[in-house]
Amino acid sequence: MKISILKSYLNESIQHVSKAISSRTTIPILTGIKLDVSFQGVTLTASDTDISIQSFIPAEDSDRTVVQIEQPGSVVLPAKFFVEIIKKLPSDEIEMEVKEGFQTFIRSGSTDIQMVGLDPEEYPVLPSIEEDQVISIPGDLLKTMIKQTVFSISTQETTPILTGVLWNLTDNEFKFVATDRHRLASRIAQLDNADGIRFSNVVISGKTLNELSKIIPDQNSRVEIVVADNQVLFKIDRVLFYSRILDGTYPDTSRIIPTNYKTELIVDTKKLSESIDRAYLLSREEKTNIVRLQTLENGTVEISSSSSELGKVTEQLEAVELKGETLRISFNSKYMLDVLKVIESEQLQISFTGAMSPIIIKPVDNSRCLYLILPYRTTN
Amino acid sequence: MKISILKSYLNESIQHVSKAISSRTTIPILTGIKLDVSFQGVTLTASDTDISIQSFIPAEDSDRTVVQIEQPGSVVLPAKFFVEIIKKLPSDEIEMEVKEGFQTFIRSGSTDIQMVGLDPEEYPVLPSIEEDQVISIPGDLLKTMIKQTVFSISTQETTPILTGVLWNLTDNEFKFVATDRHRLASRIAQLDNADGIRFSNVVISGKTLNELSKIIPDQNSRVEIVVADNQVLFKIDRVLFYSRILDGTYPDTSRIIPTNYKTELIVDTKKLSESIDRAYLLSREEKTNIVRLQTLENGTVEISSSSSELGKVTEQLEAVELKGETLRISFNSKYMLDVLKVIESEQLQISFTGAMSPIIIKPVDNSRCLYLILPYRTTN
Repeated sequence: MKISILKSYLNESIQHVSKAISSRTTIPILTGIKLDVSFQGVTLTASDTDISIQSFIPAEDSDRTVVQIEQPGSVVLPAKFFVEIIKKLPSDEIEMEVKEGFQTFIRSGSTDIQMVGLDPEEYPVLPSIEEDQVISIPGDLLKTMIKQTVFSISTQETTPILTGVLWNLTDNEFKFVATDRHRLASRIAQLDNADGIRFSNVVISGKTLNELSKIIPDQNSRVEIVVADNQVLFKIDRVLFYSRILDGTYPDTSRIIPTNYKTELIVDTKKLSESIDRAYLLSREEKTNIVRLQTLENGTVEISSSSSELGKVTEQLEAVELKGETLRISFNSKYMLDVLKVIESEQLQISFTGAMSPIIIKPVDNSRCLYLILPYRTTN
Repeated sequence: MKISILKSYLNESIQHVSKAISSRTTIPILTGIKLDVSFQGVTLTASDTDISIQSFIPAEDSDRTVVQIEQPGSVVLPAKFFVEIIKKLPSDEIEMEVKEGFQTFIRSGSTDIQMVGLDPEEYPVLPSIEEDQVISIPGDLLKTMIKQTVFSISTQETTPILTGVLWNLTDNEFKFVATDRHRLASRIAQLDNADGIRFSNVVISGKTLNELSKIIPDQNSRVEIVVADNQVLFKIDRVLFYSRILDGTYPDTSRIIPTNYKTELIVDTKKLSESIDRAYLLSREEKTNIVRLQTLENGTVEISSSSSELGKVTEQLEAVELKGETLRISFNSKYMLDVLKVIESEQLQISFTGAMSPIIIKPVDNSRCLYLILPYRTTN
């Protein structure tokens, strides 16, 4: 293998695939990044077995020569050192040559690097995926859907299935659900190109979705999603992102969402967020995060928290609309703030079915998001 | 105590004094910030016994009413909660009232806070300082002197005196020295207003100097420094910053700086810095940080590092000037990078007295800075 390559392209690809490098891998070859050079260009691959990322650098891009290939070939290079040193090379021109025993020579400007390479034959082969079920979705929409649900996953490895986000697709309705048994987030998107495609119980690790989010460009991108038996493949531009589907059956969450409400409240999202944030500051010191919401007679709500050591915070908040029974309810303010952070609507609706029943939060202008928080059972 | 105060002023003062709050204090009252209200304004005090910071908020500032004082008085409020909640209050107008048992009521917009206050009589009295020895120095110069020396202090509590920066003043020459026995940094400034004032062996904790730096504004400020027996007081605008002087005698470092050199090298600071940074990347993986510098015949130097597992980095660097004996020397690249980060000159001079003797680094256009790094004794 012998090439000359532009630093900016190599660096961008390295940044993409390095998201699959785990520092805790027990398989030595997976601490490396694999380079495969053909006359078409260079393919970089990294994997931690749960996810694998592949990025392709074409020999030419918009009539510009990106890679000059003198001799094709492959090598696996130590990821951490490779990632950092390429970023810091002095010139945009990088020459790379693999000699015997996979010794790799990298030259840029007046810098010479000799790197101990590994045998690419030892590198695991990526899964081959049947491309029967392919959907396509705008990149920014997928990122939003991830952001609006992934914070509600469980972090406890004792229930692995809940560390993922559940995906269902039926009748062009693509739905994400995440829950840690104390709260739930769900988001639906309408697709226009998924006629006849349906799947259910596709659960993808939240950690994986966060990494995927970082790779999706913010604007004008589309992501193709291929769903297979135990793998999902995301195609983003020149990047292929493979993820394992979590084993197990996701619990049915539809029954815990109340359908009749006794108290309904519409408030300004930002004002509620600021009020709860102040009450949270105090509740955090008590390590309970308990904040209380109470409806008052004059169409306002009172948000409060108290700490035996520090004192009390009391907030008056005017409702845009308040109807139904009077209510006094306690909840985890951190959970509420997590929801308020991802709601994009200026106003939101909170619906209650009594002090012991789930709290339902929805943006007023968007019926596609739904959040649920279980209340605390407190004596006051 | 009953006042109405502008949030922006209160917040700025809180930010200043809170730098003296330690989360590890064993004295309960010192977890608080003391407020003293007179008809002139409000004084905030915080202390961790090593440092104490006082900030004054005047009742009026440039004809603007900052504090309306209805009733003077004092209280100590829990620092962490106070610091965070004031920042997040909804209105710029804050009312504060201390009632019986030091219960403190804070109101801003539609937010009501009740805070458990403590008795200000329990708060330690700040040291009174004889203002015999007062010098004045531009704030940005003091910040630079701190930055250019403090990184060389020792972090080992076994030699407490070396965790500080040594200050000497004689003949208007103000000198800072820091060393951890493996490296040394010194910086001199010429004062124009310190006639007849001299002191030596004034050692101030590096941690304290870092906190002080954060309080000094970047431009157009002057700092007055009062040196007393075991305390130093810094006056910055409306802030008083008290620091303990470390006990003990600072070692004499003058004899370890060589006066005759065998090899002298002038190089571009940025180019050297980038070369060493790349070599450092590899040396860091070996956890030794060892980098080698070698003079070549053609007026260039070679910077290199190697790792048995990963490979080798070799850098060619053209010297601006290179004279004297040929040399091959190994040193801690992290220490060298620390020096290169704070040198403001475009070129620097490195002087050697052989492979086993201290390396001396100076900016070429400024004889007021001097850095020393001890070499590694390696076999190759």
